Amino acid sequence: MDESRFTRRTVWLEADGRTVGILDQTRLPFETVDVRLTSLSDAETAIRDMLVRGAPLIGAVGAYGMALALAEDPSDAMIATAYDRLFATRPTAINLRWALDDLRERVAPLPEAARADAAYARAREISDEDVAINRAIGENAFRLIEARYEAIGRSRPVEILTHCNAGFLATVGWGTALAGIFLAHARGIPVHVWVDETRPRSQGAYLTAWEMRWAGVPHTVIADNAGGHLMQHGRVDMCIVGTDRVAANGDVCNKIGTYLKALAAHDNGVPFYVALPYPTIDWRIADGVRDIPIEERSATEVTVVRGRLPDGGIADVTVIEDSPAANPAFDVTPGRLVTGLITERGVCAASAEGLRGLYPERAAAE
Amino acid sequence: MDESRFTRRTVWLEADGRTVGILDQTRLPFETVDVRLTSLSDAETAIRDMLVRGAPLIGAVGAYGMALALAEDPSDAMIATAYDRLFATRPTAINLRWALDDLRERVAPLPEAARADAAYARAREISDEDVAINRAIGENAFRLIEARYEAIGRSRPVEILTHCNAGFLATVGWGTALAGIFLAHARGIPVHVWVDETRPRSQGAYLTAWEMRWAGVPHTVIADNAGGHLMQHGRVDMCIVGTDRVAANGDVCNKIGTYLKALAAHDNGVPFYVALPYPTIDWRIADGVRDIPIEERSATEVTVVRGRLPDGGIADVTVIEDSPAANPAFDVTPGRLVTGLITERGVCAASAEGLRGLYPERAAAE
Repeated sequence: MDESRFTRRTVWLEADGRTVGILDQTRLPFETVDVRLTSLSDAETAIRDMLVRGAPLIGAVGAYGMALALAEDPSDAMIATAYDRLFATRPTAINLRWALDDLRERVAPLPEAARADAAYARAREISDEDVAINRAIGENAFRLIEARYEAIGRSRPVEILTHCNAGFLATVGWGTALAGIFLAHARGIPVHVWVDETRPRSQGAYLTAWEMRWAGVPHTVIADNAGGHLMQHGRVDMCIVGTDRVAANGDVCNKIGTYLKALAAHDNGVPFYVALPYPTIDWRIADGVRDIPIEERSATEVTVVRGRLPDGGIADVTVIEDSPAANPAFDVTPGRLVTGLITERGVCAASAEGLRGLYPERAAAE
Repeated sequence: MDESRFTRRTVWLEADGRTVGILDQTRLPFETVDVRLTSLSDAETAIRDMLVRGAPLIGAVGAYGMALALAEDPSDAMIATAYDRLFATRPTAINLRWALDDLRERVAPLPEAARADAAYARAREISDEDVAINRAIGENAFRLIEARYEAIGRSRPVEILTHCNAGFLATVGWGTALAGIFLAHARGIPVHVWVDETRPRSQGAYLTAWEMRWAGVPHTVIADNAGGHLMQHGRVDMCIVGTDRVAANGDVCNKIGTYLKALAAHDNGVPFYVALPYPTIDWRIADGVRDIPIEERSATEVTVVRGRLPDGGIADVTVIEDSPAANPAFDVTPGRLVTGLITERGVCAASAEGLRGLYPERAAAE
């Protein structure tokens, strides 16, 4: 069976070999629209206006943005201009900087005539590497899901709870937290996914549920408040979430509310897994709870909600008027509440020892 | 100072001595509209269509509904008809049944000419009793807030997190969880309230925030996901919530998501209090987590959100299309996670011993 039909790419090279295709994620879930990027400025807009999101995907689109720029003008001046303009779209996105640095180093020494082709080739490589890493994460998660299915005597679907969106939409393909779920579904292991709505931005209701529908995975959307109750009553076999940053001590920074689900999992003996590719590990941060800064985002994300009107139109409605709202975007789950970190290399404890065991070369480098 | 100006009544007798006034809670927070009930059928509609909500308030409006019926027709037949029709509006509301039983017993022996007046008088008494009980709960909660203010050296406002709505809108006046907050504010103890949105029905964002604005209490609305992070970073001094039912072992049934906040409070050493009047204690239920049934409500509450359009109109928008949603309405917080139960008699441990200590006559009756 072609398992790749259970995921899809979020950025790709069109048949003309020059235009770059993306899925416009700002219009999900109400409209599914692919967009064609034909210039540096299209790529800038796509990243800045969050048509693409998720660290690896932003990096890949940044790389393609450099290729698009060099296809127009392969000069040294354009390398500098494209770097600066693309970097400015999301200056805190570490994968974007990494991809732009990588592209610049590779194309700058080349003759102008060879630069665009080299940039396209490297952008493609960066995309494929992300897909391969996520696929490896998925294989490791798959084994945990499969083991759980055996443990319950193949008697019913494996019940998995996830928070926010760490699926293919947040990467170039497969996703992190959801990769193993897609593989299980592709391989005939019955799964049912509890999809946390994930207020305030509702990435669960808007994006994860969309991915589940896209891949045909049975799922149910729940309010963020419901997961503890479900775990208390034995209706969740395991939690799998993604992460934006893992500290060297195994503390996990992820979308706000992850910590609450980890507490409930711990209180009820439900395994709580965090899926991540190696670049997500921030070896410089010794204590995640103490030292990872938490971004405070606009109150508007809390006070305004997007949905479909009875007449079919899309509208933003204000749900909170005249009261202030606060919007911390992430929280940090202490490693003690995490059953395991699932990476492309395997599964380890969410601790300094666990991470060092899986990445000994990092331990040696310290 | 007249402290009662920091609360308001949700049901009252109009100046004509016959019409009953209520606040139409279905239109909050977008419109604040008082409604006049002039007949049995008005009272039926008010309860059935949830213009009034909250156990004590439903009971009081039921009692007034009986009075309205007897003002039209004081016959025995009408007593039976009014009882049946009012009871059928919310057959699981225990306070409603209690109030209707009480009214029927009192008015049935009276001559027809005396029945309406007696019913109005008793309805008023039931309302006043609820207000007095909540005021007593509020005094007990106030002392905890005051003690906390002293403990932080009067250096800043006391930070209180609440979930759902257990304010005056859920009662005849003052509320349960919010009563102490109104009293603290009235008495010059600075407080700041973190208001959980409380998806899916958003009673925090819609009702608690409205009450805070009404009384002028400083507050901030947050997504339900945010509370754990705030507690982890020392930004919550105490949690106070209401409850729909407390088991004899101290387990607390309350709006879905309460359990998650109790877990976070416990993990961070933040006191977690539950405020309740004595009728909320269900002495027949020995183990709340195991035995309290949890109502599954309509998925539409999760998938459809009400808000204000840019043009000022109110609209219901669908936020989740084509995916199933589940909606468990309550969860049960084990007593071990609750710092104390605040009742009209005082504060006790959330345990069988604690409850027996505060209600020894119940212990004797078992």
